[in-house]
Amino acid sequence: MNVAKRMDLLGSETAFAVSAEAAKLAETGIKIYPFHLGDINLPTPISVVTGAKEAIRSGKTGYCPAPGIPELRKALAKDVGDSRGITYNIENVSVQPGGKPSIGKYIAAMMEKGDVVLYPNPGYPIYESQIEFYGGIAHPYGYLDNPSGLELDFSAIEEGIKRGAKHIFYNNYNNPTGASSSKKEMARLANLIIQNDMFLISDDAYFDTLFEGTPRSIASLPGMKERTLTMYTFSKKFAMTGWRLGGAIGPSKVIEQITRLNVNMESCTTHFIQYGGVAGLKASKKETQDILDRLRVRRDILVKTMNGIEGVEAHSPEAGFYVFPKITKLMKRTGFEDVEEFRKAVLIDTGVSFCGRHHFGRPLDNESDSYIRLAFSGIGKEDLKEGMNLFQDWINSRTK
Amino acid sequence: MNVAKRMDLLGSETAFAVSAEAAKLAETGIKIYPFHLGDINLPTPISVVTGAKEAIRSGKTGYCPAPGIPELRKALAKDVGDSRGITYNIENVSVQPGGKPSIGKYIAAMMEKGDVVLYPNPGYPIYESQIEFYGGIAHPYGYLDNPSGLELDFSAIEEGIKRGAKHIFYNNYNNPTGASSSKKEMARLANLIIQNDMFLISDDAYFDTLFEGTPRSIASLPGMKERTLTMYTFSKKFAMTGWRLGGAIGPSKVIEQITRLNVNMESCTTHFIQYGGVAGLKASKKETQDILDRLRVRRDILVKTMNGIEGVEAHSPEAGFYVFPKITKLMKRTGFEDVEEFRKAVLIDTGVSFCGRHHFGRPLDNESDSYIRLAFSGIGKEDLKEGMNLFQDWINSRTK
Repeated sequence: MNVAKRMDLLGSETAFAVSAEAAKLAETGIKIYPFHLGDINLPTPISVVTGAKEAIRSGKTGYCPAPGIPELRKALAKDVGDSRGITYNIENVSVQPGGKPSIGKYIAAMMEKGDVVLYPNPGYPIYESQIEFYGGIAHPYGYLDNPSGLELDFSAIEEGIKRGAKHIFYNNYNNPTGASSSKKEMARLANLIIQNDMFLISDDAYFDTLFEGTPRSIASLPGMKERTLTMYTFSKKFAMTGWRLGGAIGPSKVIEQITRLNVNMESCTTHFIQYGGVAGLKASKKETQDILDRLRVRRDILVKTMNGIEGVEAHSPEAGFYVFPKITKLMKRTGFEDVEEFRKAVLIDTGVSFCGRHHFGRPLDNESDSYIRLAFSGIGKEDLKEGMNLFQDWINSRTK
Repeated sequence: MNVAKRMDLLGSETAFAVSAEAAKLAETGIKIYPFHLGDINLPTPISVVTGAKEAIRSGKTGYCPAPGIPELRKALAKDVGDSRGITYNIENVSVQPGGKPSIGKYIAAMMEKGDVVLYPNPGYPIYESQIEFYGGIAHPYGYLDNPSGLELDFSAIEEGIKRGAKHIFYNNYNNPTGASSSKKEMARLANLIIQNDMFLISDDAYFDTLFEGTPRSIASLPGMKERTLTMYTFSKKFAMTGWRLGGAIGPSKVIEQITRLNVNMESCTTHFIQYGGVAGLKASKKETQDILDRLRVRRDILVKTMNGIEGVEAHSPEAGFYVFPKITKLMKRTGFEDVEEFRKAVLIDTGVSFCGRHHFGRPLDNESDSYIRLAFSGIGKEDLKEGMNLFQDWINSRTK
């Protein structure tokens, strides 16, 4: 039996490979400082746990409807609608086993073979993987690194539109860069989408993890609700990465097709877990605020430490789990030309484990700077500090 | 936005449509007797529930490896290997959110566009749907209805092989027919597979629900382990349909590819539920035997009632949840020509809800008999009897 040719087009989430590498090193007795994965080392809120357990007790262990239980669809329509100032109903929601399934399902349902699809790069690697797996043309767009923060590279977006792009993945509060759009930038993007009759998939994984203020979604802008599929996940806000609960929210025409794929792929998302999700959405905001407060403390320590290192420049992310420092000068100082070699040396010498920019898409032609991604969601404050001290010591030893 | 053309090729599980129809009728106040869906109205064993709850408590709420936790992969390798008299290791197992995901993942990973794939019809409709969705040629094979039971139609299988079939779906203890292969029939099929260098996907959803004796798997036969992917599910044996837990078990070359699809589609199967699965596999057999004992009682009542109706002939299934009576003569007696009309009339007049043969694939050219499928897994003994009395009364009223 030969593997089908289409599998040559399938990518992966290479951050998982870094996890495997770190785990192997841990087996040899070395202490690992896990900055590599967007997992959370905090417990899931008690409201969610109680909601799920009560659902098991009351027999919610059989099949449920393919688009999800009505209670969760209603609760998600309300939560996602209210927080974006728009109205969604039950037919706008298809519950998913996580945030990720919506990527491939949207592509399978709505992208013709040969369609050009814009996607962020650096970005979550599954966009590119699924576009290419289903025979699309993945057109990357990057970010411009300005002193005020990272900005969308509109020249790349416009180039994609010239090639005829019909779809765009947009991950505001971006993984891995931490980039977020200003009001102006978001409006400019929305105008392009509308003028060119495109459809946008808004990966809102980190929308609800904004540390200060009110998050912004492009779906809120006039004319965009009809052109936006929101990828919602419980993973980040509710510390539920391993529960696998999320939803696709958007025009009913798209949602219906996604639900047809649910029937074919997994029948339904775990029944009783959906009740846990309902309970979480209805619970006091205090539980999720506690998670955010702890993450904010870690972010601030990490950004401060990074910016205190000569040759490192890091923006402070408004939301999410990641800091994405530019280390071009540090590489030079420590005698490295390749980020992957730098990453491996740090890991082996110190146990400090992080990803490189190259784990988030093939580097673009116009890139001359080097970046790494450090996640602060899966490592406690004390270990974070300890790891950063080891990193600094390592740099000092290399630059003496 | 237009829906992608490939969605025209996607089928569905039309039994869910019957569920929706019955649910709508129930809203009008009519009592429904649910014989239509292979769901279970029995609680999940306490060992599984406890295992999952303890895993939540001990923080198994973050991501886990894409192919599953090592503990479950080992336990499944042992359970599936031991019960089939073959040896599997951890690399032969990829944990899935249910039994179903293996269908599409195998097809995506191993079937080239244009490959001929044999599949049972009547059979689980997702085989045909996924073969066609990924551009394969679905070649059906049916069953011959002999007094001793249903037998594989080898002429259809051989016709498919002549067309160049490279893959075959085989669902021993078949849904919807309840058919199971004799030793001789299974050996004949295995020989064809080996002689023609084919690969077989063994949907073993009902393998562990055999009511008497020891179940047989084609993977046990010489030369077949290397040519078989076993679709394992916790859904039926452990009354866990809504938990979504299963696994693909087979040659590591196939398993590796399926795991690549896990990474792209859902990251991993719910972490703590996998510990529930481990606990279930290690628990006393008494829990699952109790489920089987209750199902056997229902089966026996249902088969006896069916065979007591003039114009109905039903085999007693050795395993599974379904009785598949031939109702050709009953249709004539009650004045129906179309099974769908018959089904709807019974549903509306009595609340007794079941599926027709047409819910399990497009009828084949050589079919002249009419069949219905009654599931006995989702209806208690008393309701089952009450529903059957109503069905008999309805027949009497139509044949006076």
